[in-house]
Amino acid sequence: MTADLARPALPLRPELVGLEPYGAPQLDVPHLLNVNENPYAPSDQVVADIAAAVARAARGLNRYPDRDFEALRADLADYLATESGVRLDPGQVWAANGSNEIMLHVLQAFGGPGRTALSFAPTYSMYPEYARDTSTSWVAGRREDDFSLDPDVARAAIAEHAPSVVLLASPNNPTGTALPAATVVAVLDAAAQVPGGCVVVVDEAYGEFRRRGVPSALELLAEHPHLAVSRTMSKAFGLAGARVGYLAAATQLVDALRVVRLPYHLSAVTQAVARAALAHSAELMAQVGSLRDERDALVDWLRGKGLTVAESDANFVLFGMFDDRHAIWQGLLDRGVLIREVGPQGWLRVSVGTRQETAAFKDALVEVASL
Amino acid sequence: MTADLARPALPLRPELVGLEPYGAPQLDVPHLLNVNENPYAPSDQVVADIAAAVARAARGLNRYPDRDFEALRADLADYLATESGVRLDPGQVWAANGSNEIMLHVLQAFGGPGRTALSFAPTYSMYPEYARDTSTSWVAGRREDDFSLDPDVARAAIAEHAPSVVLLASPNNPTGTALPAATVVAVLDAAAQVPGGCVVVVDEAYGEFRRRGVPSALELLAEHPHLAVSRTMSKAFGLAGARVGYLAAATQLVDALRVVRLPYHLSAVTQAVARAALAHSAELMAQVGSLRDERDALVDWLRGKGLTVAESDANFVLFGMFDDRHAIWQGLLDRGVLIREVGPQGWLRVSVGTRQETAAFKDALVEVASL
Repeated sequence: MTADLARPALPLRPELVGLEPYGAPQLDVPHLLNVNENPYAPSDQVVADIAAAVARAARGLNRYPDRDFEALRADLADYLATESGVRLDPGQVWAANGSNEIMLHVLQAFGGPGRTALSFAPTYSMYPEYARDTSTSWVAGRREDDFSLDPDVARAAIAEHAPSVVLLASPNNPTGTALPAATVVAVLDAAAQVPGGCVVVVDEAYGEFRRRGVPSALELLAEHPHLAVSRTMSKAFGLAGARVGYLAAATQLVDALRVVRLPYHLSAVTQAVARAALAHSAELMAQVGSLRDERDALVDWLRGKGLTVAESDANFVLFGMFDDRHAIWQGLLDRGVLIREVGPQGWLRVSVGTRQETAAFKDALVEVASL
Repeated sequence: MTADLARPALPLRPELVGLEPYGAPQLDVPHLLNVNENPYAPSDQVVADIAAAVARAARGLNRYPDRDFEALRADLADYLATESGVRLDPGQVWAANGSNEIMLHVLQAFGGPGRTALSFAPTYSMYPEYARDTSTSWVAGRREDDFSLDPDVARAAIAEHAPSVVLLASPNNPTGTALPAATVVAVLDAAAQVPGGCVVVVDEAYGEFRRRGVPSALELLAEHPHLAVSRTMSKAFGLAGARVGYLAAATQLVDALRVVRLPYHLSAVTQAVARAALAHSAELMAQVGSLRDERDALVDWLRGKGLTVAESDANFVLFGMFDDRHAIWQGLLDRGVLIREVGPQGWLRVSVGTRQETAAFKDALVEVASL
């Protein structure tokens, strides 16, 4: 008997063999501009209100939480009405531990073995992992050189692959570019022709950072029961550590997610934290406004230095082109500024930080890239 | 064109059509003895420490949490060493939003399409849902009339079905019965013979309530790299609302779960709450001791009334037999006592509450069942 027989093998799924866990490096660096976090920590008042809300929830933590988190869904519906002007019923809102769990629910309900999820690259690098985790086939169509999506290309890809789920990030990550409403409608119309049905998810994780005049896909919900719009409190609300993603859709679509969610997936503490932060949405949206201004100024500055910069409706900017982007990335890191080496070859992505962080980034970039 | 064509169908997976979301009724009743919650709310000191820990975490909530929650894993390893005498490395510990997410990770890594998960019924009613959610085939072998597991039956079922995952609840839900170490070892040995490998999960959600002399499967970890032991803070720690499940296994097995977990699945708040509660484990384990005493007294009382009662190593008791168990359940509910109509025909399950709750249950049962 060999040693291998004495130590039974683990039946790891073949598609997982040799993979490393997903995630950007978590390095201890003065200026963290790599994962599109909100640079503003919660204010003292928000912290105090979160602590008080959790203390109240903690008195009942021996009991299971509200499985349907109805108060939170109502608060999220109210927030969306204020933010986008679209009034939804709380039953049209779903929430989970980050928008990645939202996507998992969508693919568990509507994807899975024998089905295909389609997106258009370059786009969020987690999408193929969600597909893999749910045994959904993954197809990446293409975006144009300016990262826009050609409606004809989208229509053709949908007709060819007959996906049951289409994922559209808008504003897109890592490019920052938003889709015009006409493009989203073209995708919705093509999806409606897929035999067996097709759900279109518009991932608006960065939706609050969109420029004035750029619409939210929330406005399309009333006319499109196969549309879902996902959002997160990680970015605009500065709550990446709290893990609260959410989704808006027709009630029938949300009810399908209720079947696949793990019971009590959203803790009483998470519900309390989210509601406490939502009560401060006016204050937090003011910070979003200043980040948008910082973002626009950063885009102008980079262009002024002769760099190519993607249009950004997000809290980050994709810029280039560099023959050796890794050298630029490393040079910035050596100067205490961590950005992300992501996207097509030649590009780099930087998150919009505080004015001080942006200044540190600019100074370092001028040196490293000899601007 | 018909109305149906105008409203595109949702591509709900066929196996989900017509299903209702899982979950026990959440009713507003004086005595909630239906979902095996710990009746003791966190003490004022635990509440204060949780609130303080969350306030500290809240100051950095704009940042993503520690993806590998290393401090929490170290605390859990320390707790398990105290509780069971088994010293593990923090890298052997995994955690997630409830032990149901733990099970999801296990089945995503080791189950999935073309693979089978096996358990022995009657057992926890969520297991087939975890299998369904991961497109894993589900097979339920049988337990004996006293809810024990015959090692020969287990061996034969494993040889017949060649599962990649075996789920053994011990103490079992809804029966309360624990498995002897010899039975677990028999299952582990049979699993080691499965071509391609087989992971055995011993679900010890109720492990802390086991009677003196009943071992934990943690003691078998060192010799069995294909064993995983899952636990939860929902029951013994009285933290059902906080959603913290965890698992102990060989590092290689835990590393496979790291690949399928959603990045940042465990919020900074959840990590803070869990660690604050773990710092009070001595106090909380004293409550577990008194619940065990209550449980033993309740078993004796029910037997004294001539009822059949399953052996219980959990914080609940399965008792019967009733020709019309629904009438008994309804009669108790009419008297303000909510228990669970679950398990094989004729049986009912009651959670062990406070002394006052148990007294209310007894009074109601004497009336309803004419004891």
